[in-house]
Amino acid sequence: MHRRRFLTDAGLISTAVLGGTSAFSRLNGEDAPTVPTGLRILFQGDSITDAGRNRGNYYANADSGMGGGYVYQIAADLLGGNPEANLQCFNRGISGHKVFQLADRWDLDCLALKPDVLSILIGVNDYWHMLGGRYDGSVAVYEGDFAELLEQTKKALPEVQLMIGEPFAVAGGTAIDDQWDAFDGYRAAAERVAKEFDAAFIPYHQIFADALAHAPADYWCPDGVHPSMAGAHLMKEAWLKEFERLMKS
Amino acid sequence: MHRRRFLTDAGLISTAVLGGTSAFSRLNGEDAPTVPTGLRILFQGDSITDAGRNRGNYYANADSGMGGGYVYQIAADLLGGNPEANLQCFNRGISGHKVFQLADRWDLDCLALKPDVLSILIGVNDYWHMLGGRYDGSVAVYEGDFAELLEQTKKALPEVQLMIGEPFAVAGGTAIDDQWDAFDGYRAAAERVAKEFDAAFIPYHQIFADALAHAPADYWCPDGVHPSMAGAHLMKEAWLKEFERLMKS
Repeated sequence: MHRRRFLTDAGLISTAVLGGTSAFSRLNGEDAPTVPTGLRILFQGDSITDAGRNRGNYYANADSGMGGGYVYQIAADLLGGNPEANLQCFNRGISGHKVFQLADRWDLDCLALKPDVLSILIGVNDYWHMLGGRYDGSVAVYEGDFAELLEQTKKALPEVQLMIGEPFAVAGGTAIDDQWDAFDGYRAAAERVAKEFDAAFIPYHQIFADALAHAPADYWCPDGVHPSMAGAHLMKEAWLKEFERLMKS
Repeated sequence: MHRRRFLTDAGLISTAVLGGTSAFSRLNGEDAPTVPTGLRILFQGDSITDAGRNRGNYYANADSGMGGGYVYQIAADLLGGNPEANLQCFNRGISGHKVFQLADRWDLDCLALKPDVLSILIGVNDYWHMLGGRYDGSVAVYEGDFAELLEQTKKALPEVQLMIGEPFAVAGGTAIDDQWDAFDGYRAAAERVAKEFDAAFIPYHQIFADALAHAPADYWCPDGVHPSMAGAHLMKEAWLKEFERLMKS
């Protein structure tokens, strides 16, 4: 984090254990990190991020603008748990989008917002839309476009902290079949890009794969692509864990 | 809890500390309780509970059927954290409703569902609609109707566990003015009814009052009646705490 700037702000918010001395922190653990004041967090991606959000309500922390998925769950916990931090959460996921479509709207939907933390989950449509014949892409195109997008981002916002979510396909989901074995290449590409740009990486695919030991795909992610609220809860927990790590670093 | 029945079921689910050995529990604390399998939880109330839910999607654990408020946040955490518990969550809140309107639809929207845990938050409209001249009521009518509803419920479902939420009005909200001082009587009545029926009581009004020390009403509950996602997060935390206590008892 660019702590120096934040430290000169109105002060750092101490967080505490849930159920401990203060009700006002979602972040757990005895050495829970501080959340800098005024942190601006942008969520970018496709339908999983969009989650039916009211796109006309695009202001910071707008309830209906968060959609009904992992972004809403994260924002509710962050805002509810850290009322003095003046956090600003934005959701700019758009259903159906692939990396190049993020690039097309990056000026307005990322750079102009000047996020401190940029969380991106993109890639499932880069593969899925090929199966349906609606798109002609490849792992190389996905990886190249993604890296280019992040390079452009880092150039415009050198201090931005990146969080990249692993694109996932949940085995047993109604839309998932053998053709999805090749999707592994996209997941690996996302992880390489995350490493290249020193981004936090959230291993959603593995998280869902592990969760299948506890309940079937229908419970977590009925079609294998779009999580249920229980699946979005897993994403929230994993995201907050990485976010907490980021705030400590 | 009617533990005996649950103990003969497929087994009790152990829960663990968040960030501890298991990712699969929302319930915190070293002596976190077990959640019985197959528990059916019904949320009843007005617009705060309804929260724009898709009423056509009335099945258990239906994502869009949970709405976008505290019920969604609770259900997501419970279902995501306890995948083997076979929990069933239902939301039957309807915007604008007062106690007598719950009574009108109680057979279908409560008794037929046979909940193990019944969570009710009702009362703000019993007062608010009087201010607007749309309703002629009183504390006595509210309390009498509420007690009658619970008596009927206990008769039909003798083992049901009751959780009653304190109706609240958040000072500083755009819809709240001096006329709302008289609303205190309704809050006190809800607490008396909770005591009479040995129900868990969730002190939402005090929780919001305390939260105002950390951020203004606009942050928690812009109009003083309908919580933001941050406000719904406070409700979730308080509800889960009472629920946890109930599971231990």
